[in-house]
Amino acid sequence: MGGSTFGKIWQFTSFGESHGAGIGVVIDGCPAGLEIDKTFIETELAKRRPGQSAIVTQRQEQDTCEILSGTMEGVSTGTPIAIWIANQNQQPKDYNHIADKFRPSHADYTYTAKYGIRDYRGGGRSSARETAARVAAGAIAKLLLKHLGVDITAYVSQVGHIIAPDVDHPSKDTIESNVVRCAHTGAAVEMEEYIKQIRKEGDTIGGMIRCVIKGTPAGLGEPVYDRLHADLGKSMLSINAVKGYDYGSGFDAVTMKGSDHNDAYYTDNDGKVKTSTNFSGGIQGGISNGIDIYFRVAFKPVATIMQDQQSVDKAGKDVIVTGKGRHDPCVVPRAVPIVEAMAANVLVDHLLRSKTSKLSDVIE
Amino acid sequence: MGGSTFGKIWQFTSFGESHGAGIGVVIDGCPAGLEIDKTFIETELAKRRPGQSAIVTQRQEQDTCEILSGTMEGVSTGTPIAIWIANQNQQPKDYNHIADKFRPSHADYTYTAKYGIRDYRGGGRSSARETAARVAAGAIAKLLLKHLGVDITAYVSQVGHIIAPDVDHPSKDTIESNVVRCAHTGAAVEMEEYIKQIRKEGDTIGGMIRCVIKGTPAGLGEPVYDRLHADLGKSMLSINAVKGYDYGSGFDAVTMKGSDHNDAYYTDNDGKVKTSTNFSGGIQGGISNGIDIYFRVAFKPVATIMQDQQSVDKAGKDVIVTGKGRHDPCVVPRAVPIVEAMAANVLVDHLLRSKTSKLSDVIE
Amino acid sequence: MGGSTFGKIWQFTSFGESHGAGIGVVIDGCPAGLEIDKTFIETELAKRRPGQSAIVTQRQEQDTCEILSGTMEGVSTGTPIAIWIANQNQQPKDYNHIADKFRPSHADYTYTAKYGIRDYRGGGRSSARETAARVAAGAIAKLLLKHLGVDITAYVSQVGHIIAPDVDHPSKDTIESNVVRCAHTGAAVEMEEYIKQIRKEGDTIGGMIRCVIKGTPAGLGEPVYDRLHADLGKSMLSINAVKGYDYGSGFDAVTMKGSDHNDAYYTDNDGKVKTSTNFSGGIQGGISNGIDIYFRVAFKPVATIMQDQQSVDKAGKDVIVTGKGRHDPCVVPRAVPIVEAMAANVLVDHLLRSKTSKLSDVIE
Amino acid sequence: MGGSTFGKIWQFTSFGESHGAGIGVVIDGCPAGLEIDKTFIETELAKRRPGQSAIVTQRQEQDTCEILSGTMEGVSTGTPIAIWIANQNQQPKDYNHIADKFRPSHADYTYTAKYGIRDYRGGGRSSARETAARVAAGAIAKLLLKHLGVDITAYVSQVGHIIAPDVDHPSKDTIESNVVRCAHTGAAVEMEEYIKQIRKEGDTIGGMIRCVIKGTPAGLGEPVYDRLHADLGKSMLSINAVKGYDYGSGFDAVTMKGSDHNDAYYTDNDGKVKTSTNFSGGIQGGISNGIDIYFRVAFKPVATIMQDQQSVDKAGKDVIVTGKGRHDPCVVPRAVPIVEAMAANVLVDHLLRSKTSKLSDVIE
Repeated sequence: MGGSTFGKIWQFTSFGESHGAGIGVVIDGCPAGLEIDKTFIETELAKRRPGQSAIVTQRQEQDTCEILSGTMEGVSTGTPIAIWIANQNQQPKDYNHIADKFRPSHADYTYTAKYGIRDYRGGGRSSARETAARVAAGAIAKLLLKHLGVDITAYVSQVGHIIAPDVDHPSKDTIESNVVRCAHTGAAVEMEEYIKQIRKEGDTIGGMIRCVIKGTPAGLGEPVYDRLHADLGKSMLSINAVKGYDYGSGFDAVTMKGSDHNDAYYTDNDGKVKTSTNFSGGIQGGISNGIDIYFRVAFKPVATIMQDQQSVDKAGKDVIVTGKGRHDPCVVPRAVPIVEAMAANVLVDHLLRSKTSKLSDVIE
Repeated sequence: MGGSTFGKIWQFTSFGESHGAGIGVVIDGCPAGLEIDKTFIETELAKRRPGQSAIVTQRQEQDTCEILSGTMEGVSTGTPIAIWIANQNQQPKDYNHIADKFRPSHADYTYTAKYGIRDYRGGGRSSARETAARVAAGAIAKLLLKHLGVDITAYVSQVGHIIAPDVDHPSKDTIESNVVRCAHTGAAVEMEEYIKQIRKEGDTIGGMIRCVIKGTPAGLGEPVYDRLHADLGKSMLSINAVKGYDYGSGFDAVTMKGSDHNDAYYTDNDGKVKTSTNFSGGIQGGISNGIDIYFRVAFKPVATIMQDQQSVDKAGKDVIVTGKGRHDPCVVPRAVPIVEAMAANVLVDHLLRSKTSKLSDVIE
Repeated sequence: MGGSTFGKIWQFTSFGESHGAGIGVVIDGCPAGLEIDKTFIETELAKRRPGQSAIVTQRQEQDTCEILSGTMEGVSTGTPIAIWIANQNQQPKDYNHIADKFRPSHADYTYTAKYGIRDYRGGGRSSARETAARVAAGAIAKLLLKHLGVDITAYVSQVGHIIAPDVDHPSKDTIESNVVRCAHTGAAVEMEEYIKQIRKEGDTIGGMIRCVIKGTPAGLGEPVYDRLHADLGKSMLSINAVKGYDYGSGFDAVTMKGSDHNDAYYTDNDGKVKTSTNFSGGIQGGISNGIDIYFRVAFKPVATIMQDQQSVDKAGKDVIVTGKGRHDPCVVPRAVPIVEAMAANVLVDHLLRSKTSKLSDVIE
Repeated sequence: MGGSTFGKIWQFTSFGESHGAGIGVVIDGCPAGLEIDKTFIETELAKRRPGQSAIVTQRQEQDTCEILSGTMEGVSTGTPIAIWIANQNQQPKDYNHIADKFRPSHADYTYTAKYGIRDYRGGGRSSARETAARVAAGAIAKLLLKHLGVDITAYVSQVGHIIAPDVDHPSKDTIESNVVRCAHTGAAVEMEEYIKQIRKEGDTIGGMIRCVIKGTPAGLGEPVYDRLHADLGKSMLSINAVKGYDYGSGFDAVTMKGSDHNDAYYTDNDGKVKTSTNFSGGIQGGISNGIDIYFRVAFKPVATIMQDQQSVDKAGKDVIVTGKGRHDPCVVPRAVPIVEAMAANVLVDHLLRSKTSKLSDVIE
């Protein structure tokens, strides 16, 4: 009930703090018989890890992982899969300078309000380090989705005022060819320069990630509360620093007329039902229609800046908070694998849920 | 598991279809001792009901309700509270013209993909009539929140390209004084005219709702997956026709720097910790900080239009879908009470969840 | 969270009190395409209803039901199925004589301790009338199980000291041929006489129900916490007046040696794996093995007796509680359909859960 | 959804297999501010560990544990507490002799039926080694319950035909003074001799555990499906080798009359409501009444015996299964801490759930 479990059938629980022993995740509900490719999990983790490029935090973490349970000879057995990502550099740091201060726009004050105490070491549970657990679970979800030909691609579409054009068929190669993880090479260069400049200012900047999912079967999602886009939305909004989410036409729909927005159906040459436009974003009535799913995720600028800031301490006294350490000037390049991972987790959950929608599937 | 249950402690389940006997909701988890004011529930339902003004659908529904269980002498007993809202005008209509057709941007195709069959009578379960259940549950949630001084106010902030200015202290009186439910009287007039024109065109238009919540205690929300804004987001995204959600600075955060975005803490004259700005939107690290919560919800134009549209039928054959009947040219005026209701449901759920965050609260 | 929801995929929520408007149940998670035979539901309800014979309470209830949602033309649509069983004889009775008294071994005192208030009218939510909701849900579960050839048969195996012999292949005809619902005609006569005598004494008597399930596919149940027999056990223990449950060898296993208790496997002429004995009760490691499942449920004597009893009132003052009204001298004859219903609900839940155990079932 | 998560607010997830890296448990929902005494956890684990005495399996395991997350300076922070118990003696053993055979009354056949594959190394997930996770979680639950004065004491009450007398106030000292963990010294001697004899025969024997809980506040438990005794029952039935559970009068209630079974209320000298008898077992209508809770748990004889047994292999061919290795002749001495742990987990879950039963507790 503490909010560290996600999903209904594909259900995973994360644990661990930024500066404790490590981060772990337990996936309960993975079907038996899936090959669990540890190298793939670590490849995904590497995309999220600090120190991977000049524009992200220079903290060094390796993010290798250990599979603690749930597999035999590399194959899932149907029992809980636990993955452990040990923290490195656990040397006891001096956090006294922030132990009693509330850093602006961090979770320091709210954790204290909720729990009475807070783990001030590196942000404790509120640290984005927790997202390693999501990426690990999402990697296994992706392995499962591969069997169905579902492909998830996220990329940075905006950094500050630099907007990359929307890409309907983003290339993973292009995205991984630049440190920003932008699907447009030209914009990537611009973004990289801008992020470097922001870092020099000791400041941080917001950004946007766009995600496109191809190959989703029609029929995933539940009516009413667990609509596919609502669960996708919650999964994205649960990522650190996310302030907004929209899918399909999104916020643009506000200014559109129904006659423009409605997606006309037609039958293609293979007899498959398609739509001539896709303002629906591949989801109608909360259920996938087999067309591409796409959505956007808006990230705020990282709260840790290398500048003095006004704040208060536990006693309510005025204090100055001084940024130090190594932090990300812009979170979105490293958030791309997290967005993909959460999308994969949601899709697999609804894929498994869909297996009992029809009596004919149940009594076969 | 069919996705018709919402919440963890304040947990409600809705049932019923557009053209069946009625809509119902069962709330399991309401504390004992709460006065259940039936008139208040019906007042809330009236704001959502069709036929209330010239700019909404002219279908006539009364939305009176019956409390089937869970109260004694007007007070909750702690056992499930069931509320029943009977459908009126249940005369068997002729739906043959759409029984086999997939209406563009409706749930017809996806329900068929998921279930094999679909209830084509008035949209069945995909109809926005289901939202009456949410409003009824939310009304009781509001009654509970009143005891804590929490106040939720939603209003229409945009219709098509007509944007009303953001209002930090929206007046419920102003909002209810115009049929659009806009917090700005001047914009309301413009919006109303525009919606009438859209209706004449047989078309529909999108819109936006903004919601402000005052008086939330600090400490509500869970770290990681069940962050308060993520649960709010899911609740909003689960409402019919919603395409996007953001909170606090929202999508604007994308272009902001950390030095501008961070909300500096200070202690006010009463010794209370406050922030000098509120880009956080009252939530930090997923947990409320006691400052105003605010968020936006983007609605697409209603899919039912009074124009001929291209589509296909179950057999994949080209067909023309012809709109008929009485529908909303713009959904947002009637969606205002739904947004408030879902916000209330989420807040109460997290309020109840917060009661076991600290050992001192548990062992007292 | 109030404890009125049961199951994970086959998930139903019950509501309503003994002396309110009625009892209802909402089943969320029923696959689409199942024929919902209302007559069958009412037949099951009739077995549970008061007034059906000379040895049960003479209260008159009809237990006809109304299907409020979730079906179209008699077939499930995949959306929540709500069933409503209106209470009859709702004339306001005089409950003043017990409003402030705690009846011995009833829930009066504990409800007051938990909720601060209690609905004293006919026991409110603690009344066994709630079990009508279970029977209604279970009837639909049985309809689903019929497609798989699963057959559930419960019967009264003991009343007081009168023990009927265990029957491996109980006949539903025999069971329904006597008012006790015993599978052994001779014992039934004896039991009926005994219950009549107990009623004359103004007293009540305990009893036992045994249940045999044939045709369960191998592979239902989860390891660890949601073992099939543990979920069956919880479902039985949640029935009013139940004090104990065991399955397979049950409490007799305490005195057995492993060499006697182990069920040897063999392959039958059809190449099917079977066991030569069945002390396992059809479940091993929490998962069904395809052999008959059987278990026992122990019921205490009904607490309402027609004799004066010592007790206290809300103020802690000594009072005499005097039984009046029409009550069951022995609960087991009417509990037989409830036991069957809960068994059906558990089996369907685990059947649906089993659909995602293997990757090959998921990616087909 | 894989059944490895237990509880609603006090919610823990276990993972790990008998012969993998270890066993782990994640507790999500522990209130912040609880001192987590690692020594106490290990003391509890030691009671469950193999090799502790001459009458249990001589496998050597140390069951020391590591707290991976959720605490700071020895105090819970409100975030997930993960505990890891590494397996020792992980040298690769030769399991080829059973890899394809279905051992009688083990989970080999059913796991294969459910998952297609099974982890044959030491029983994998079906091994009782998983119960270390329950004991670790239960130890923390006990630490919390100590603050309320709740005391849980389980003991062996029967081994084979040797029945120890019921003890209303069992002494933990007496129980821990003998290797059987019997509350009656004389019976303990007899039981120990008998178990040694059984082991010499290469056989195993069933047994019974009785549990008494003192100091539970009135008002814990939910009406209807999540009755306190039903959740206790499920928790016990989920323990390896358990075949039955009853509480209060239990199976004896079958032969009792209401006039004998009803527990008369009276007010004691301190003005506290009590009952003169306690056939209810401290729970009425599913909710605790503040009187002692007591229940029994029946265990079958361990399936692994040192004798040749008839069985089949995966291909359905007749095979002989030959027991080897070190196993328990009687499971109950080591099951005592598991029973206590699961009782503690259930009680804390319901304690936390009870915090929102009354409006006055919620709005204070």
